[in-house]
Amino acid sequence: MKQQRGKQSLCFENPPGIEAWTSIVGKKEGDGPLGKTFDSVEPDDYFGQTTWEEAESALQSRLLSGVLDKAKQTPNQVRYLFAGDLLGQDIATSFGVKAFQIPLFGIYGACSTVGEALGLAAMTMAAGYADHVVALTSSHFASAERQFRTPLEYAGQRPLSATWTVTGGGAFLLGKKAKEVGITGITTGRIVDYGVKDSMNMGAAMAPAAAALIATHLADFQRKPQEYDAIVTGDLGKVGKQLLLELLLKQGIDISRQHEDCGLKIFDCESQKVGSGGSGCGCCASVLAAYYLPRLATGEKKRILFVPTGALLSTVSLNEGKSVPGIAHGVVIESFREV
Amino acid sequence: MKQQRGKQSLCFENPPGIEAWTSIVGKKEGDGPLGKTFDSVEPDDYFGQTTWEEAESALQSRLLSGVLDKAKQTPNQVRYLFAGDLLGQDIATSFGVKAFQIPLFGIYGACSTVGEALGLAAMTMAAGYADHVVALTSSHFASAERQFRTPLEYAGQRPLSATWTVTGGGAFLLGKKAKEVGITGITTGRIVDYGVKDSMNMGAAMAPAAAALIATHLADFQRKPQEYDAIVTGDLGKVGKQLLLELLLKQGIDISRQHEDCGLKIFDCESQKVGSGGSGCGCCASVLAAYYLPRLATGEKKRILFVPTGALLSTVSLNEGKSVPGIAHGVVIESFREV
Repeated sequence: MKQQRGKQSLCFENPPGIEAWTSIVGKKEGDGPLGKTFDSVEPDDYFGQTTWEEAESALQSRLLSGVLDKAKQTPNQVRYLFAGDLLGQDIATSFGVKAFQIPLFGIYGACSTVGEALGLAAMTMAAGYADHVVALTSSHFASAERQFRTPLEYAGQRPLSATWTVTGGGAFLLGKKAKEVGITGITTGRIVDYGVKDSMNMGAAMAPAAAALIATHLADFQRKPQEYDAIVTGDLGKVGKQLLLELLLKQGIDISRQHEDCGLKIFDCESQKVGSGGSGCGCCASVLAAYYLPRLATGEKKRILFVPTGALLSTVSLNEGKSVPGIAHGVVIESFREV
Repeated sequence: MKQQRGKQSLCFENPPGIEAWTSIVGKKEGDGPLGKTFDSVEPDDYFGQTTWEEAESALQSRLLSGVLDKAKQTPNQVRYLFAGDLLGQDIATSFGVKAFQIPLFGIYGACSTVGEALGLAAMTMAAGYADHVVALTSSHFASAERQFRTPLEYAGQRPLSATWTVTGGGAFLLGKKAKEVGITGITTGRIVDYGVKDSMNMGAAMAPAAAALIATHLADFQRKPQEYDAIVTGDLGKVGKQLLLELLLKQGIDISRQHEDCGLKIFDCESQKVGSGGSGCGCCASVLAAYYLPRLATGEKKRILFVPTGALLSTVSLNEGKSVPGIAHGVVIESFREV
């Protein structure tokens, strides 16, 4: 089994390619440093709907349409959809994608969902189970606030350690015609729980999972950090980034030159007043689609390790005094271009 | 691609075997017709914990320990865990399995979750990505009532069309040494929404998805119902069963001789006062482990089509006036014994 690497990783001998990708974000994200790179910036927070949950479903629906259009595929040419979101029972996904009638694997990995989706999608393609699959995820600031904290009408105050849930998402169509960029390996995460109980400090809750994942990945593939152009976490933010670098340094691993965090790329924390940075399934999904994949496609970047991180909490678990366990999933994305 | 069958199915040339399985249920389920067949009947509804959610996590933890013990495996010999539950953000799973430190793919398919988990587990094994994987799911009556309806203390009345969420679950370890029973194919479901808005009639909401899945499965594999010893839905109950048979008959498919429903097997509806039958992720998972797999392992049954069904609702979607879309996932389980 050459494909199995170490305890948690797979290396794909025929790497599944990413044929098309798309990103859609909300107005605040459009005002951020990456604003011009997203495929679409939606000025209406409701996406033309009447509830926040419907808004997020409309976002998923548009992402799916968008990626199909880019790849010139119809829904019935896509064999599987791997999709999820942050809401209880994945409702943004269920209502967003149902009209497309694509066989669905619903997944939940909190903000790590896009890593889980891309991993399963790549496994499916590399095994020859499909000719086209889509990985899809989203988040919406207002639906997430209602789900995890308080409805917006409460106008609750936030500590600086809190992150700001991104309104946005990304969709990725894996197909056999892809010639520019693909997934060459994955490292699947375990739950890591350092006992953090502060739902306003997700970065601290998730950093240990990211550190464990990155250390395991480098060991499984016998690689050094400098063999990556970037090691990209999802939404650790300022607080989580510092913890991640410290935790890895204690193991003798220095990723300070390679590390980037999508939550810190999508917003300007100071001027946009987002506390520790952006977060949510849609944060790293939209940044991957808008910022990293185009650079990998041109060959400007050769190889990145994409590590979305998730905080496995619910209001019920939190109200019952439980900690916030973290998980992270790693995806190696490489340029197919010879430069 | 011989593995791909029709639009939604896979046929495994080297069928992944199920090496071990286990079932645990609560007291009420233990009092039902299958009471003596479960591996364990827990008399304490709290499973030794202090909240219903912790109880369900304890159930998942015991299931995972149990199946590892049966297969004489340690957690670090299991490469992937595919697991989920009914609660928002899959918290029963996250807190139940975290101590095992097995790389986790969290999934959500409502009560169809065990079908999704077994499907992904089989895909992973058949591709050579792992030597051992576990599929795991659970439900708990009290945590589900609080999640989807009202806390038990409200003592709400239920119509006869309502089903009763099973306290229980099943765990399934797929491995290469299995010689008795395995998964020979899967059919992955699409969302089907007939517009049912009654959360007390899940059978009606899910029957169309089951009918669509079964019809597609038979077409994809070019088989007739009589080529199965049983076509087993998860938790349609009395109302859903009748609808399923009618919907399929309209397409010229008669499964009345083969159809069985786990929700109707686990309880005696009249004497146990469970309305339309049992339901929940743990219903079909525990019945598969306790009733069907032993019969397939001995060769008493040769082939079943296992079709767990899920209702993709949340209290938020329901309160916002949305319908209850359904999904179903099909798993072909066959005896390896020559009889």
